[in-house]
Amino acid sequence: MCGIFAYLNFLIPRKRKYILQTLINGLRRLEYRGYDSAGVAFDVAQPASDEKAGTLRIKLVKKQGKVNALDEEIFNQGDVDFDGDLETHVGIAHTRWATHGVPNEVNSHPHRSSHGNEFVVVHNGIITNFKDIKVFLEEKGYVFESETDTEVIPKFIKYLYELQLDTRPSFQELVEQVVHHLDGAYALVFKSSVFPGEVVAARRGSPLLIGVKSGRKSQSDIIPVTFSEFGNAGRCLYEKPHKPVLTPSADETGMSFDRQLQDMSMEYFFASDASAIIEHTNRVIYLEDDDVAAVDATGTLSIHHLKKGESDILHSREIHTLKMKLQEIMKGSYDYFMQKEIFEQPESVVNTMRGRVNFTTETVVLGGLKDHISTMRRARRLLFIACGTSYHSTLATRQLLEELTEMPVMVELASDFLDRSVPIFRDDVVFFVSQSGETADTLNALRYCKPRGALCVGITNTVGSTISRDTHCGVHINAGPEIGVASTKAYTSQFVSLVMVGLVMSADRISMQQRRKEIINDLKNLSGYIKEVLKLDSEIMKLAKSLYNEKSLIVMGRGFNFATCLEGALKIKELTYLHSEGILSGELKHGPLAMIDTKMPVIMIIMKDNTYTKCINALEQVTARAGRPIIICDKDDTDIEKKAFHCLKIPKVADCLQGILSVLPLQLLSFHIAVLKGYDVDCPRHLAKSVTVE
Amino acid sequence: MCGIFAYLNFLIPRKRKYILQTLINGLRRLEYRGYDSAGVAFDVAQPASDEKAGTLRIKLVKKQGKVNALDEEIFNQGDVDFDGDLETHVGIAHTRWATHGVPNEVNSHPHRSSHGNEFVVVHNGIITNFKDIKVFLEEKGYVFESETDTEVIPKFIKYLYELQLDTRPSFQELVEQVVHHLDGAYALVFKSSVFPGEVVAARRGSPLLIGVKSGRKSQSDIIPVTFSEFGNAGRCLYEKPHKPVLTPSADETGMSFDRQLQDMSMEYFFASDASAIIEHTNRVIYLEDDDVAAVDATGTLSIHHLKKGESDILHSREIHTLKMKLQEIMKGSYDYFMQKEIFEQPESVVNTMRGRVNFTTETVVLGGLKDHISTMRRARRLLFIACGTSYHSTLATRQLLEELTEMPVMVELASDFLDRSVPIFRDDVVFFVSQSGETADTLNALRYCKPRGALCVGITNTVGSTISRDTHCGVHINAGPEIGVASTKAYTSQFVSLVMVGLVMSADRISMQQRRKEIINDLKNLSGYIKEVLKLDSEIMKLAKSLYNEKSLIVMGRGFNFATCLEGALKIKELTYLHSEGILSGELKHGPLAMIDTKMPVIMIIMKDNTYTKCINALEQVTARAGRPIIICDKDDTDIEKKAFHCLKIPKVADCLQGILSVLPLQLLSFHIAVLKGYDVDCPRHLAKSVTVE
Repeated sequence: MCGIFAYLNFLIPRKRKYILQTLINGLRRLEYRGYDSAGVAFDVAQPASDEKAGTLRIKLVKKQGKVNALDEEIFNQGDVDFDGDLETHVGIAHTRWATHGVPNEVNSHPHRSSHGNEFVVVHNGIITNFKDIKVFLEEKGYVFESETDTEVIPKFIKYLYELQLDTRPSFQELVEQVVHHLDGAYALVFKSSVFPGEVVAARRGSPLLIGVKSGRKSQSDIIPVTFSEFGNAGRCLYEKPHKPVLTPSADETGMSFDRQLQDMSMEYFFASDASAIIEHTNRVIYLEDDDVAAVDATGTLSIHHLKKGESDILHSREIHTLKMKLQEIMKGSYDYFMQKEIFEQPESVVNTMRGRVNFTTETVVLGGLKDHISTMRRARRLLFIACGTSYHSTLATRQLLEELTEMPVMVELASDFLDRSVPIFRDDVVFFVSQSGETADTLNALRYCKPRGALCVGITNTVGSTISRDTHCGVHINAGPEIGVASTKAYTSQFVSLVMVGLVMSADRISMQQRRKEIINDLKNLSGYIKEVLKLDSEIMKLAKSLYNEKSLIVMGRGFNFATCLEGALKIKELTYLHSEGILSGELKHGPLAMIDTKMPVIMIIMKDNTYTKCINALEQVTARAGRPIIICDKDDTDIEKKAFHCLKIPKVADCLQGILSVLPLQLLSFHIAVLKGYDVDCPRHLAKSVTVE
Repeated sequence: MCGIFAYLNFLIPRKRKYILQTLINGLRRLEYRGYDSAGVAFDVAQPASDEKAGTLRIKLVKKQGKVNALDEEIFNQGDVDFDGDLETHVGIAHTRWATHGVPNEVNSHPHRSSHGNEFVVVHNGIITNFKDIKVFLEEKGYVFESETDTEVIPKFIKYLYELQLDTRPSFQELVEQVVHHLDGAYALVFKSSVFPGEVVAARRGSPLLIGVKSGRKSQSDIIPVTFSEFGNAGRCLYEKPHKPVLTPSADETGMSFDRQLQDMSMEYFFASDASAIIEHTNRVIYLEDDDVAAVDATGTLSIHHLKKGESDILHSREIHTLKMKLQEIMKGSYDYFMQKEIFEQPESVVNTMRGRVNFTTETVVLGGLKDHISTMRRARRLLFIACGTSYHSTLATRQLLEELTEMPVMVELASDFLDRSVPIFRDDVVFFVSQSGETADTLNALRYCKPRGALCVGITNTVGSTISRDTHCGVHINAGPEIGVASTKAYTSQFVSLVMVGLVMSADRISMQQRRKEIINDLKNLSGYIKEVLKLDSEIMKLAKSLYNEKSLIVMGRGFNFATCLEGALKIKELTYLHSEGILSGELKHGPLAMIDTKMPVIMIIMKDNTYTKCINALEQVTARAGRPIIICDKDDTDIEKKAFHCLKIPKVADCLQGILSVLPLQLLSFHIAVLKGYDVDCPRHLAKSVTVE
């Protein structure tokens, strides 16, 4: 998984320095998607000694490491005229997360067709049939320089270009010929010295969107876009631009050349997600799978959908206006995004409930589900499909959903669900939970369930994401952008959203009213409780100091708090590279107890709910084996202190909401251990924010 | 959890040494149930200096550690006349697995009423209300010496005895008064100096059975047993013995006194399971919950059921004849039971299929399910409930059951299922999988599901176990006794049994016939394949040498082999105390990948099934981060060798059976690492064979 960014300025002169800084800034915003190496491609003048002196050629700069390293590398290039103006120019950029080939300069993007850099490309995804294409091209004499799957793409387009020199297909047609042969998942952006000033992008399976910014001050809604479907003639959805008439004098309208030029000018931004675009424009077009988008020499953006007859997709194509604010994706006063996001949770859970939970009337309304609730209540069963942290949020709320709906509730890891080809029926209701809304396995599970007739419900944090668009209905968790790779506030907001789903589904059950009121009342005070837990920060930092040299760590609990153990252990794994594991304390005696001794640090979650006695039994077993447990427990539980090595006391809420509070100390603990170990909290090694390949 | 053994010889003179050796041998057979301390109680003469000289008193010998340590301790007692004859005598013994209080001499059993040892008791289970009783007794002046829950029991019976000195209730009545006040789970055996030669036992929740051996050569079927239900008069199920007539001369029948005495003589053996009894007698009575069994001064065994109106239980009471052979529970030529059991698997899987799978007609019949198959096919869903290794066997076969039945299949950890109070319906079919058939959580789940009207199906290895008796129908996996605490052959036999369940349920589906034939054909050859995998033994031993100093170990796979990862990791945890964890490779990028570096050993299972390409992707990610994976793969997969640090090649079978083979290298690996570390393979620290408390 990687981040893609491209910038095209059409008839709007920009200094090379400005263009490169725009590309670098775009990559910085996308760095959470991958950060083991990065690269850019842009135009420079041919050296004076060259026979083509005076024309432009494509230059690549690539660097192992994070975007900052690339930034430094670019501005150390001695042969680049940073102050040169470029009236129309395409720059493409990429920040990488390795899948094929180790992170290094030669494996990083953009990849190129040959040493001449005729075609260069950036790619997010995996090409599964790259070996076959590579063998074919090697037979044709192409020599490969990297170990990546991507490199076949620029070489293949060059091959196709040279094969058709007589018929001269357009840049867009060439790309369509290439992607026709690719299996796997991709978002691609192409640049070529053969087609200067043009850019072509293609998407299947990996996210890609286009920001558009018109220079026309007076008619800002008119964007030159055409849309066509395979086999049908192009259909102009938006007004086409006039061909620029390059006369130095004022024309009939009395408009000066400069004014007219500015009127034609356009800027296009291609990116893996909106956070890289929002500082330039809030008007975006989301590409769909099998779209090829191209900006040609006239500055017109045309989108060609390669499959025929998917009228849904045709109708959904429009220019969206983003409402995300830039400061939402900035770190604020915190040192790390993750830290900021942990401490945002008193607000983010309120945002999740805003306009949905009415604490006065004790009612809950989820606008996105309103029309489907009766279908959901009649379902045979509820399934929840997710990966990683999102999966833990479904585990955490499963018991409550079972209790409130009295229906069978299954939770599934998306990859395992797909591997097993689980039987799905028309009377199933399937929830797809993903922070980014782009998680590849969860998305594939959606594509598996939808044709089988199940009602598909999305739970995402990203408006306009594929899952939020392709499900029948859904809930946006409204946690705000989450930049830290380790999910924190999205988890608690997913948790609250799923609780609200349970409350909505049981709204007409008389026997559930008492329970519902208890939950709604505790939701009202949730923000305050979270603030109270976050005050443990300095105490947890001290605890982190006693733990950060350990090799292993066990987190143990059961019932409503079991998901917290898995989620806490995952946070510790992700951030600190410690081997931590969440264990159901009911399973302790079936094996894990053998590992317990004075050396193995154990964190236990023991709350006064219906599992309390059993949890105390587990605690007795640990202390009888000389273990020294750190216990997360109720504020008013004074008995337990004698048995604990350390107690972290948290407020008492309804048992089914306790997991929202019990996970916070583990978020903080993983954060502090990672800082103490000197690791990059926001970018844990090997990991990326949203996993858009299987 | 603990092991209980008691021996009563009635009118059959035994030397004290013989009695003690019998007790010790009984404990040795039960040692797999717990082995952190052990103890015995038996009668010795009062010292000549004492005022009661000439009478007997109860002596306790207890020792921390395994049974061998107790053995040594007993025969080092200087004040015991080992050669003294005891005509009628009760000895009780116990091997402990700590739950309340650390393992040491004072916490070990038998526990006593006071320094006078008037009442002594051995206990398996947990008394949950012991604190209340303790407070009560302390107010009465009783002083406690241990930290256990058990100690309240002998003190409480002494208190009740002294309170009723005038009415003089029988020993059995006193025990009934005691257990009336106990909450929790228990199997108890009492001995008292006030009731010499008598023994009383009680059961609720923990297993207990009685072996009976009559001295009457001529009428060996006549055993003196009475059975009564609370509130009803006793009902004599078996002929009562004559009162012994102690005349020294021959009586009217011409029988000598000695002959007559022998005719009356009886031996009773009380034990937690049959393996401790089988060397003495094959005739046993299984106690039910709420039974109190007593042998009185006439040598008669009477069983009193404390609840009224459970006619089921009344009818099921009979003397069973055990068919288990003693050599089945001996180690044979292996150094460890576990090793023996691993190498028994080529035979044990055949025993599981014997008489059930007909390879000629390609049909499967499960006698125990025959009458319920049509109900099962009409079910709303199938649930599988289990703990530990048994749970992994349900995970391993879930996908096949989904495929063959096309029904929703849920698998649940018993403790989590109970914590969540999962909604259960009359049209559910629930399987309870447990090697011992006594696993407390699984048993409680059965007690939760049965009254809700679900069809309950048992899958156990122990004929006569509570689960096998209390379910509506079931399958015995016939793996033979498993002594090693870490389950091996029971896992593969559970696996095969669940596959057979799937085959039986899909027998009438035309679309499944091809798949069924493929599976049956591979089952036919399974034994040979297992033998082939076991030949990797010496190669795996070498591998163990390279791994045994590691601190952590990851086992990774997906699809049909995911359960193998969890089960392999559990074996390694149990036996080697390494922190090993099974990870779904589809989840790798959602967190665990951060832990991967050159130092973290990773075992990957990559078989050529429908997940192969995805597994290879995971492998690429591991090797791109410089991980050095050990790969379990197909015999004919030559490509993968280049990427592996080491390859373990196993034969190819139907994808759904592959897990039976892929788990074997991990069983062997855990075994060899444990041996290299010098750990006790058959008795891992802190663990016990069957977990009969929650």
